This record gives sequence, structure tokens and C-alpha cells, in this order.
Amino acid sequence: MSGYALPIRNLIREFAKFPGIGEKTATRLANHVLHASVDEVRVFAESLLDVKRKIHLCSVCFNLAEGELCEICADRGRDHGTICVVEDADSLIALEASGGYNGVYHVLQGAISPLDGIGPEQLRIAELIARLDNQEVNEVIIATNPDTSGEATALFLLKLLKGRGVKVSRIACGVPMGGDLRYIDKMTLAKSLEFRRSA
Amino acid sequence: MSGYALPIRNLIREFAKFPGIGEKTATRLANHVLHASVDEVRVFAESLLDVKRKIHLCSVCFNLAEGELCEICADRGRDHGTICVVEDADSLIALEASGGYNGVYHVLQGAISPLDGIGPEQLRIAELIARLDNQEVNEVIIATNPDTSGEATALFLLKLLKGRGVKVSRIACGVPMGGDLRYIDKMTLAKSLEFRRSA
Repeated sequence: MSGYALPIRNLIREFAKFPGIGEKTATRLANHVLHASVDEVRVFAESLLDVKRKIHLCSVCFNLAEGELCEICADRGRDHGTICVVEDADSLIALEASGGYNGVYHVLQGAISPLDGIGPEQLRIAELIARLDNQEVNEVIIATNPDTSGEATALFLLKLLKGRGVKVSRIACGVPMGGDLRYIDKMTLAKSLEFRRSA
Repeated sequence: MSGYALPIRNLIREFAKFPGIGEKTATRLANHVLHASVDEVRVFAESLLDVKRKIHLCSVCFNLAEGELCEICADRGRDHGTICVVEDADSLIALEASGGYNGVYHVLQGAISPLDGIGPEQLRIAELIARLDNQEVNEVIIATNPDTSGEATALFLLKLLKGRGVKVSRIACGVPMGGDLRYIDKMTLAKSLEFRRSA
């Protein structure tokens, strides 16, 4: 970075703090800022601050939201009787991108992980139960990640929701579409055999 | 991007304007902003605006500078009798990073390219001549890029500086260090033969 004036060096250092951005890419991005117009940079800086100022959690499902409700909870066209439980907003976005779901969500804000000090009371599980008590819900789909903490959370929720008269399901686990069996790990293959469907 | 609240979508769009940043990377970067503290984001936004507010061109060499003079022109430890002429600040940074130069620079702010409407009068050539008139200069090293417009600029400068009693040189052209002759273009190989040095 030697040869650059201090404000440019500062900006390069700031860009390099982002995940997956090394010094070379950071320099390229800072160069783009140098050559952009003042107005363009102002709009960018404003949009950064906007995210921190305006985004908070939806009061119903704890998805990231601009208003009181997130866009999904506010959408009357969606099936509010089906709740998909996810760990975080990123999972929600991934499921939304799949286009295969028209229900609503509940974002737990993490998964049970005793080693990290995260128990059920650190998650939005009480709020999920409250939703089931206060509104008509037909089905809860548990879509936590298929890893240790996600599975632990799913198991906990399954026990908690049993006998509440609501259908509870777990997203399917198996070989990914387009995958090659040679390169898929043993656990996934075992699951894909265990959960085989009659054709 | 569906599922994200508007301020996040805006930020993703802003990140995606950077060169080499696609929607996926932009989303990852926006996510980092979401999870960063307000203060961290404020520092980042501030450093962006700082670059536009504080950076201008050095009054001597037209390098990017924070003060009246750039750090190189202000450095009394450097050899002010040797001027390396480059097209832009990026070239200057690359040469500085090589660590092989202790003189000063002159940044032309481009190269002669008639098709783009850039002639000698659009570049900082008059200012270079003024520097030669007003101070003791022993050598001018022409380090424009070895492409059409860079070579045209070098040729123009060579003619202009001839007979001024100053030593003029051009950076060496040849095979890059660590290169493999099999994969080096014909033009470069021809140059490396033409400019061979007696060993």
C-alpha cells in the first residue's frame, strides 16, 4: 500500500476487513471509489448507514425487517397457517430463492449449542410457542441446518411440539440434485438410503 | 434478492456496482455490514467519504495526494533529479511496490489516444516541461505502458525532450521474471531479442 495517501490506505484497510476480501481486491475496490463521482460514493455510504439505521427484527417472525412486520409477514397472499422454522435470516433467504414455499417463517436467531452457551432460552422458541397458541397453525416445518446444533434444535422442537395438535415436519435430507454419488459424503448417502421413498 | 428488506437490497445493489463483484459476493458483503456494529459501519462510510473529500492531485507531480504535495514529492530523502513519467497513479503505486526506485514521478493522467480524443494537450505534458525548465533534472525515465497509446506517448515525449540536455530513458521491455517462454506472446519475445544485453 506504500505510495498511497493516508485516506486511501484507510479505505483499503476498511475494505480488507470484509470476508473474502484480500489486500489486492481491497485496493481495486478503493480505486473504484477514487474514480467514482462524489454523488455515487455518497449514495453508497448512505445505503451502508441506512441498513444499520432502518433494519431491525420483525415483531412476529424475527426476520430482518424495515417496518414493524417483515415483507413476508405483511403479505396477505401467503399461507399464515404454515410456519417454517429456520435458524437465521440467511436460511430464510435461501428457502425463498428456491421459490417452493408460500407459507411464513419463524427465525430462531441461532441453534442450540451448549458449548457456545446457547440454550433454548437464548433462541426465539418461546415466541414460536406463543404464535402457535395465538393463531391457527396447521403445520410447522423445521428447517434448521442438518448439522449438530441444527439437528439438536430440531429434536428439541419436535419434542416440544408433540401433542400440540399441530402437524410437524422436517425438511428432507438426502443427495443434492445434480450431485455425483462418488463425491457425496457417507452420512448423506446413509440418510438418502434411510429416507428412501417408494417409487 | 427477494426476501430481503429494501435497505438491504439497496446495499446489495450498491456493492454489485464495484468491478468484479457479482450479486452473490455483494450479498455476502451486505450481510457482513448487517452483522457489524453501527460504529464499524460508520467508520467505513466515513473512510469512503474521506477519500472523496481529502484526495486531490499533487501540485508538482499530479499523483494522488492529501496535502498540497504528495508524500513522494514531500520526501526530501528522494532523488528529485530523476523523474519517472507514468500514465496514472496505479502505475506509480506498482513501481513503488517494486522498491527499485528512489526518484520522483510525473503522472500524465493518461496516454495519447487520438481515437478517444486524448492528445498531448489533455495530458500533464506542459507541466512536465515546466518542471524541467524550473529545476535541476538529470534524467527522465519514461514508464508509460508498453501498449499502443503508451508507446505513442513515449515516442512523443522522446521527441519533445531531445536536445534539452537531459538524459531520457525508457523502461526495459522483455520477458517477465518467472515467465515461461512457451506462453509468452510473440511481440514480447521479439522485443526481448531486439533489446538483448551482452552478458
